[in-house]
Amino acid sequence: MDPPAGTTLDDITLDELRLAARNHALPLEALRYPVTPVGLHYLLIHYDIPAVDPGAWRLELRGSLERPLSLSLDDLRERETVTMAVTLECAGNGRARLEPRPLSQPWLTEAVGNAEWTGTPLAPLLAEAGLRDDAVEVVFTGADRGIEGGIEQLYERSLPVAEALGPDALLAYAVNGRPLPPQHGAPLRLVIAGWYGMAHVKWLSSITAVTEPFAGYQNKVGYRLYQDADEEGVPVTRIMPRSLTIPPGIPDFFTRERFIDAGPCLLEGRAWSGWAPVERVEVSVDGGATWDYAELGEPAGERAWRGWSYAWDAPAGEHVLCSRATDGAGNVQPVEAAWNLKGFANNEVERLRVTVRP
Amino acid sequence: MDPPAGTTLDDITLDELRLAARNHALPLEALRYPVTPVGLHYLLIHYDIPAVDPGAWRLELRGSLERPLSLSLDDLRERETVTMAVTLECAGNGRARLEPRPLSQPWLTEAVGNAEWTGTPLAPLLAEAGLRDDAVEVVFTGADRGIEGGIEQLYERSLPVAEALGPDALLAYAVNGRPLPPQHGAPLRLVIAGWYGMAHVKWLSSITAVTEPFAGYQNKVGYRLYQDADEEGVPVTRIMPRSLTIPPGIPDFFTRERFIDAGPCLLEGRAWSGWAPVERVEVSVDGGATWDYAELGEPAGERAWRGWSYAWDAPAGEHVLCSRATDGAGNVQPVEAAWNLKGFANNEVERLRVTVRP
Repeated sequence: MDPPAGTTLDDITLDELRLAARNHALPLEALRYPVTPVGLHYLLIHYDIPAVDPGAWRLELRGSLERPLSLSLDDLRERETVTMAVTLECAGNGRARLEPRPLSQPWLTEAVGNAEWTGTPLAPLLAEAGLRDDAVEVVFTGADRGIEGGIEQLYERSLPVAEALGPDALLAYAVNGRPLPPQHGAPLRLVIAGWYGMAHVKWLSSITAVTEPFAGYQNKVGYRLYQDADEEGVPVTRIMPRSLTIPPGIPDFFTRERFIDAGPCLLEGRAWSGWAPVERVEVSVDGGATWDYAELGEPAGERAWRGWSYAWDAPAGEHVLCSRATDGAGNVQPVEAAWNLKGFANNEVERLRVTVRP
Repeated sequence: MDPPAGTTLDDITLDELRLAARNHALPLEALRYPVTPVGLHYLLIHYDIPAVDPGAWRLELRGSLERPLSLSLDDLRERETVTMAVTLECAGNGRARLEPRPLSQPWLTEAVGNAEWTGTPLAPLLAEAGLRDDAVEVVFTGADRGIEGGIEQLYERSLPVAEALGPDALLAYAVNGRPLPPQHGAPLRLVIAGWYGMAHVKWLSSITAVTEPFAGYQNKVGYRLYQDADEEGVPVTRIMPRSLTIPPGIPDFFTRERFIDAGPCLLEGRAWSGWAPVERVEVSVDGGATWDYAELGEPAGERAWRGWSYAWDAPAGEHVLCSRATDGAGNVQPVEAAWNLKGFANNEVERLRVTVRP
């Protein structure tokens, strides 16, 4: 199979536009909020938001367990409660910047958000259910149904047992202090901090411990890095580092280009990685020719993005602003993206055009 | 000036995509909620969401008034409180369906929502301020600044005095029972029920009574129906009738085409108009060749959309579903749109493709 068509940024198709309309990006100025308000956080909904009756809803834990469980929302609320600030990014963020452009949701750079998720940790529930030693993965099944790759399916994804038992896995029923809204997976979703969004299964209906690696579409076909369609590919897992700048000044309505006045301008932004805390952010005000260190703020939480700032004395003219993040695991944002067939994990450095007026 | 370029639906530009990413449509399955949850309501933000400090914020009432007022949010909350369910639609909804396609936010059909807005009515405030007889319009100025048509501006729009004094004008500080989130105009926005969204000025900072018709960009240039750019144009005002169907069955992820099984299928949808209540909805299951009456539900409020349903015995095959609304003022949705230069008020009948499986 050849790579999908789509070679320039000025031939977006109707199918892509339809996805861009229904899936929501973070308007970039909303990077200013350390905790993203509900309604501004990015949203990628594979099929439809399902109509789930929270009163009738139950979570089923089954598979390789000593004591399968069936739990109501109240059962879950009565258990240990944890709130975690988690930066969540879509695995397809940056896809529309690849050439040729893989045909799917055409994200530019802004499919991200940072929210405070409240729920109950997954590990104690799996312990209560008596997870057997032969389990190798845990499958999370949502209530959203659709057709993808020609296959009718419920949205479902697995995690290795070690991740499901780790401190990053939460069954969340609230966000930013309020019950989950429908678009974020009401009444219950998985949050698996540090992983791209495809792993955070929404509208969760069952959790199944399996003794063989899960061969469902989203694991085996959907979310993999391929160079061509004949190869097995590499699973998409944790979030690669990225930094974005809060766009300075004011925008032009149609082009979204930015205008500021010459003189001191404090550039600010946020950076994150799912592999380790962000340890360094560099800024370039000349399109990547030279770089300087930004000042880092305190992270908004162990699993959350980190603010940064950089004092720029902006001279009149046209400029391209860039920033790049480095995490504690040594991952650095690339200036140019490595292409892959489905357009995942493109964390290429942002290029923000600014006109500085005299 | 020739009409803007853009002639087919498969050549959407990067500028349009960037707008489609930051502005949010209602995912069509969310038509199922009589009151649209926050985060699913459509959003069109002209410039940036401004950073407004609600503690320092004040609303200034000025211009042709006997007693100019400067009010805090608490001052407004202490006044008469009204909650109204209002269906709000973007004037540009349907733009991307016009050929040639006007270049701006490329909405398909889903820039709509219905929310419960709480605030204080405008008319008593204008009475308290002593609106003078020489005032002809009232100008609403927001805190959002940008460049449009080459002009740097705050977003501002006027209404005729009669509309500002009418029962449809509300200064809203809450939506769906919660304080306004930033994207809906916190701390205060205008709601002017029945008008397209461009009139509902967000992040309101001042209200000015003027003695000449307001000549600001959004009134005199932006929101007008033109056939060509040399003419004066006709102002965009109230919402033309539209009906949309809750997409039945399940979607294909990429194309969003719908699949259902043969047999009884209850089609449901919602219809609205800013001119008068919706009095009739017709449904076609053959792409508009024949029409039948839908059953109407109770409106979700005097100024809100109205649910409808239609029992369809779906035969296997490919079908195009349509619905059209007629309001009490005699406005009927057209099957084909009348083009205009900027792509406003295209309320052409929706065409929803469905594959019915045997």
